Amino acid sequence: MDFLQSVIKHNLTDLLLTGNFGLEKENLRVDPNGNLALTPHPVSFGDKAKHPYITTDFGEAQIEMVTPPLASSKEAIDFMQALHDMVSEQLDNEYLWPYSLPAVLPEDSNLIKEAQFSVPEITEYREYLSHKYGKRKQLLSGVHYNFSFSDKFMNLLYHTEHDSLSYREFRDQVYLKLARYYLKYCWLFIYLFGANSVMHESYAECCKHPKQKINDDTYSFKGSSSFRNGASGYRNLEYFYISYNSLYDYIADINRAIENGQIIAAKEYYSQLRLKGHSKGSVLEDLKQNGINYIEVRTLDLNPLIPLGITLDSLELIHLFMVYALLAPDFYLSDDEYRLANKNQVLAADGNYSGGIMLHYDTKKTVSLDSWGIEVLKDMHAKLSAAGVPLDKLKIINNFRNKLETREPNPAVKIAAEVEKYGYANYFMHLAKEYMVKTKQNYYKFVGFEDMELSTQILLKESVLHGVEFRLLDRADNFIELFNHGERHIIKQATKTEVDNYATIVAMENKLVTKELMSRYNIVVPNGYGYSSIEEAMVDYPLYMQKSIVIKPNSTNFGYGVFIFKSKFSKADYKAALKTAFSYDKKVLIEDFVYGKEYRFFVIDGHAVAVLHREPANVIGDGLKSIRELVAIKNASPLRGFGYKTPLEKISLDEIEQAFLKHQGLDFDSVPKVDEKIFLRENSNISTGGDSIDFTDIVPQSYKRIAIKAACSVGAKICGVDMIIKNIQNPYPENNYAVIELNFNPAIHIHTYPYKGRDRKLAKQILQLLKLI
Amino acid sequence: MDFLQSVIKHNLTDLLLTGNFGLEKENLRVDPNGNLALTPHPVSFGDKAKHPYITTDFGEAQIEMVTPPLASSKEAIDFMQALHDMVSEQLDNEYLWPYSLPAVLPEDSNLIKEAQFSVPEITEYREYLSHKYGKRKQLLSGVHYNFSFSDKFMNLLYHTEHDSLSYREFRDQVYLKLARYYLKYCWLFIYLFGANSVMHESYAECCKHPKQKINDDTYSFKGSSSFRNGASGYRNLEYFYISYNSLYDYIADINRAIENGQIIAAKEYYSQLRLKGHSKGSVLEDLKQNGINYIEVRTLDLNPLIPLGITLDSLELIHLFMVYALLAPDFYLSDDEYRLANKNQVLAADGNYSGGIMLHYDTKKTVSLDSWGIEVLKDMHAKLSAAGVPLDKLKIINNFRNKLETREPNPAVKIAAEVEKYGYANYFMHLAKEYMVKTKQNYYKFVGFEDMELSTQILLKESVLHGVEFRLLDRADNFIELFNHGERHIIKQATKTEVDNYATIVAMENKLVTKELMSRYNIVVPNGYGYSSIEEAMVDYPLYMQKSIVIKPNSTNFGYGVFIFKSKFSKADYKAALKTAFSYDKKVLIEDFVYGKEYRFFVIDGHAVAVLHREPANVIGDGLKSIRELVAIKNASPLRGFGYKTPLEKISLDEIEQAFLKHQGLDFDSVPKVDEKIFLRENSNISTGGDSIDFTDIVPQSYKRIAIKAACSVGAKICGVDMIIKNIQNPYPENNYAVIELNFNPAIHIHTYPYKGRDRKLAKQILQLLKLI
Repeated sequence: MDFLQSVIKHNLTDLLLTGNFGLEKENLRVDPNGNLALTPHPVSFGDKAKHPYITTDFGEAQIEMVTPPLASSKEAIDFMQALHDMVSEQLDNEYLWPYSLPAVLPEDSNLIKEAQFSVPEITEYREYLSHKYGKRKQLLSGVHYNFSFSDKFMNLLYHTEHDSLSYREFRDQVYLKLARYYLKYCWLFIYLFGANSVMHESYAECCKHPKQKINDDTYSFKGSSSFRNGASGYRNLEYFYISYNSLYDYIADINRAIENGQIIAAKEYYSQLRLKGHSKGSVLEDLKQNGINYIEVRTLDLNPLIPLGITLDSLELIHLFMVYALLAPDFYLSDDEYRLANKNQVLAADGNYSGGIMLHYDTKKTVSLDSWGIEVLKDMHAKLSAAGVPLDKLKIINNFRNKLETREPNPAVKIAAEVEKYGYANYFMHLAKEYMVKTKQNYYKFVGFEDMELSTQILLKESVLHGVEFRLLDRADNFIELFNHGERHIIKQATKTEVDNYATIVAMENKLVTKELMSRYNIVVPNGYGYSSIEEAMVDYPLYMQKSIVIKPNSTNFGYGVFIFKSKFSKADYKAALKTAFSYDKKVLIEDFVYGKEYRFFVIDGHAVAVLHREPANVIGDGLKSIRELVAIKNASPLRGFGYKTPLEKISLDEIEQAFLKHQGLDFDSVPKVDEKIFLRENSNISTGGDSIDFTDIVPQSYKRIAIKAACSVGAKICGVDMIIKNIQNPYPENNYAVIELNFNPAIHIHTYPYKGRDRKLAKQILQLLKLI
Repeated sequence: MDFLQSVIKHNLTDLLLTGNFGLEKENLRVDPNGNLALTPHPVSFGDKAKHPYITTDFGEAQIEMVTPPLASSKEAIDFMQALHDMVSEQLDNEYLWPYSLPAVLPEDSNLIKEAQFSVPEITEYREYLSHKYGKRKQLLSGVHYNFSFSDKFMNLLYHTEHDSLSYREFRDQVYLKLARYYLKYCWLFIYLFGANSVMHESYAECCKHPKQKINDDTYSFKGSSSFRNGASGYRNLEYFYISYNSLYDYIADINRAIENGQIIAAKEYYSQLRLKGHSKGSVLEDLKQNGINYIEVRTLDLNPLIPLGITLDSLELIHLFMVYALLAPDFYLSDDEYRLANKNQVLAADGNYSGGIMLHYDTKKTVSLDSWGIEVLKDMHAKLSAAGVPLDKLKIINNFRNKLETREPNPAVKIAAEVEKYGYANYFMHLAKEYMVKTKQNYYKFVGFEDMELSTQILLKESVLHGVEFRLLDRADNFIELFNHGERHIIKQATKTEVDNYATIVAMENKLVTKELMSRYNIVVPNGYGYSSIEEAMVDYPLYMQKSIVIKPNSTNFGYGVFIFKSKFSKADYKAALKTAFSYDKKVLIEDFVYGKEYRFFVIDGHAVAVLHREPANVIGDGLKSIRELVAIKNASPLRGFGYKTPLEKISLDEIEQAFLKHQGLDFDSVPKVDEKIFLRENSNISTGGDSIDFTDIVPQSYKRIAIKAACSVGAKICGVDMIIKNIQNPYPENNYAVIELNFNPAIHIHTYPYKGRDRKLAKQILQLLKLI
């Protein structure tokens, strides 16, 4: 099976790079001084035995974050960043320790707690590990990278090869070949991504090898790359051979190790790569029944030099190596070869690179890590290039080759130097705190999902936090599915759910119908009529000519096409406004302008849970800058964006703003006085650059009751009620309010991240309404 | 109060003509020979005591049709036409008698039944009338025209006049003025619209005046205009004065007539015009409490010369007269003047016009009907012209003036001549049958609502037939509200109702999501994937290059942007199709093409109640005409239109058709052979010119169960399931079907009026599902 030829012949290059990519990452929780946190796993993450994204590994303080399989390494990185930020935000005066070797550990080992689970077997296994390997060593943390080729690609590849294998056997053979390649060559990755050669004295007992004191409380394993992957790292106590030449042998060999008492379960077999099945049950039985689903690469150290601890390039290189392994000639890995591979792993981890590391090329010959590494990367480049892999990917290979050629130090070297200078806890805590600041800057978004509407990001974030699993049914459509303990719901744009009925929605889409239904409940709405043509509306000009009126399209949103006449207006003004409004909709409403401030009530299931005043787009003068300049400054805030992907929207300088300023005798180049507040629009929608100010605790109950009744009048469970209130101090609604609109898809982000005020936790309430939490 | 000046000064001309217009009309049911039907009121119209649109007047065979108040006389005419057609269609070998005087009556009066009601008082009142006036005379039928000015106009007019009246008093005074004017001048309308001067011998006993036999069984009241409005017509037995000078006097005078035993209730007061209140209860009490709501003009005879019996011009003239009455100088109507007005009414009705009719101009002077009529119409023209009423309206006045000036005979004269020639029953039955043919031609539509989607027209028609009241919440949006016995539902486009939930709908909007949800129920769907960009889809070209595939936008409907590749296709073809599909949606689906015929299953509440095969747009050759010509002929059918307003849609000759023909080596100018069937599209949607063939009774149950499961998979109550079936004879679905789409707003008209097959009564089932019937 020459897959390289198949890929070329069948034009499969693009598909060759498609796959499923996942990450798992552990970080210890620490206090502000870098001491291991002795507190329990935060309750806000729920039951760690069931949480699909946030759990613990060995230690109670060892948070493990898990991404679902995603379409690229970049997506996996982003999701992990989101989990990292989410977890960090929930910590109470604690931090995520950014280094693979443990933080400052208590002298008394009894204080180090194994992770406590509701399922006793899970905790008991950890106690077994403590006993066998020691609690301190089990706290080593790292990154696992999960990979499989896409089904599309595997299917096509399978069908291009006409031999006697079943599809399942074919897949198994492909992944076993990848595993053999990886195990043979992973010394390269251990070295390149090695990021730990210093340890705190509280950990030093775990090190069986010569070490050197570099300052008061720190030891170094001078010149080495990855203590975690080395002889004193996370390894089985004795060598035993596991064959990767067939799945049958792999399973049989692990079973033999269990029978021999070398390990007690497959999961105790510490290898640089694991074969993974389809379900969470017994892995060997699953592999036997259903074959290999994906491979787990366990080499990567936490890289403390970057906030997340994982670089995209490291994942990309491993991915490209897997693709290379598929295309390159096959080989088997005998006991001897496997043993040599293991030796090479330790040499790459523990060896002093600056002194030159010699690896076992085969049983007879040794070769320097550099030259062999360059040879491997060259061959990868050649094969992938022949397969048509694009230049930007090939460049990644060349970059790493260049590191070897120029003997550029790996992360471990740089870290050792810094720790020597600043001290162990001090250095890493400095980084941890810096990264926490970055996390806080991301507070409003779900990293990796920034292309989705902010309301959906918030709902997804809340779901992930509570362990509610999600699927993106249609990402561009903000269409998701959430499931947890048997409940399963599809949700679009955060508030389009099954709790509302279709007729209610189409009613709310139509302002005229909404008003009609509300007035039946004796809710005050502005007087007015709907029109189907300019001519029809012109007939009624005498009706309005003496009044302050609003002219608006019947079904559009966000204030588009809306005109407000507050002072005397001509028949020509009226006609022009109608023309604009009719360009948005075939039906236009004209109604009395209602004086007062506008408030958005968010009603959910008969409760008015959030109230927001939205101030129209505005700037505050400094006596120097023009309106145009002031808007540019306000728009520069990272909180302002386009299309509901940020808490606030940018202010436009378009026709509507121009017309509105003109009414005030201003234009974009006018210079407002110091502290003068200039409004740029009449309508106060956040979507047109307005500011959001939380009034939930200020607005009298009476108005909340009206908002609830308004939602009820159309039968809505989730509803945004827009109400004008003249005087918010007056608890008597009579002559003091009018409901001007109902919204069937109200944004939640404006109540989550108001310009002023606090988060009203709407995402959580939506999850509760849907019985998902 | 000079309203003319107010209208001019305040620019109210356009509003002046706005108002509420309604019609009531009676027709006797007759057998094919013109004998009064002795059958009961058709059960399909439900309880006549509660039905708002279709009931009976005096006689069981006297159907009364009632429109709601509408925005113009034209709308009232249209609605009445729709009622007329609906009633006619339901008759079983009976017809609507088109003449005001009764059909051939049985000799035995006992056979003539008063209308039987579930409420005994209603029937008992009719028995009282039989006794007092005679059953035969009570069968006289006519047209009532209800009118009020629009609230908008009345309000503005009220506010332009600054006197001491309340708004209610102001309205009352306006309508009383209209009433006085009308009563004084209604001789003009009695004459102009008079349409009965001949009677059958079975009715002759009701005529107290000289009459002349004109053939075997017919008598004429030679030269007269309106027997119904004359001395022997529908009148109180003796004269009594009712004041229209104030509402107080009006009520007091009617009460006095009741006390005096002249009548037993206000409704027995037979006047040319009635003042009407706001509710259906006691009219005098209602008028006293709430004032006048509208006026009812009772002058109009059925005009048998036109199918509906009512001309638009007659309504327009009366409307313009009411407007004139508002604007013209006021006067009071004393007992003497009222008596003279009554006399003039009888003179106009019974007088021989050809001999010249002299009316009482006042107590001293007489004047010819012609010259006075011309004077009135001239003054109307002048006043309305001064008020700015447009020319097309003024022209109506001039047309009638012209009739008087040229002494053009009124309808009564023409009818008398025809009856004399053809015989009474013979002539009117000839007309009745001709009108029935016209009714049948309208079978599929709701006259007056043709601007709405046909599915909505059908649902409205079914509602009206069952006495379900409706409101058009937003006509252009096909948004209606239906209510009956306490149930109230809003419905958009016939199938968007509250029985379906929002998440279900948004899921069905998205084909990708729909497929995903269906496959969880093990429903067979075509294999495939969704793509967000052309580039992404290009990567998968190798996946599809060997197959037959469909490329389609994710959320559009009606087959727009859909490409099907059945034979080998190039990468360029593939890319071009993607480009087109992406121009319709940001997400595109590519899936295996499934061979077989497509069927639309209409699922409602867990039942597959209709199945339709839709044949793609096609023509059948005659060996002579080109495809272009054959399409033109097929499109000429009145059943084919645009935008779902007819049972079928016109076939287009656009790019898609061109491309599809090109695949077959054809173009629009190719000439198909005799009986050769040429398809113009791959997709079979009715909306793109396809034909609909009912398969409800043919398709095996097993596929209906799959359709029901498909609807269930997304939680839909009302759902159109599109299924490809290879062999409809095969009851085993395995390998014989795939569900390709679900539709959340399935049309009902295609199942109501299929190209071949029968009405599956979906509108009725929707009303039942909503518990409206």
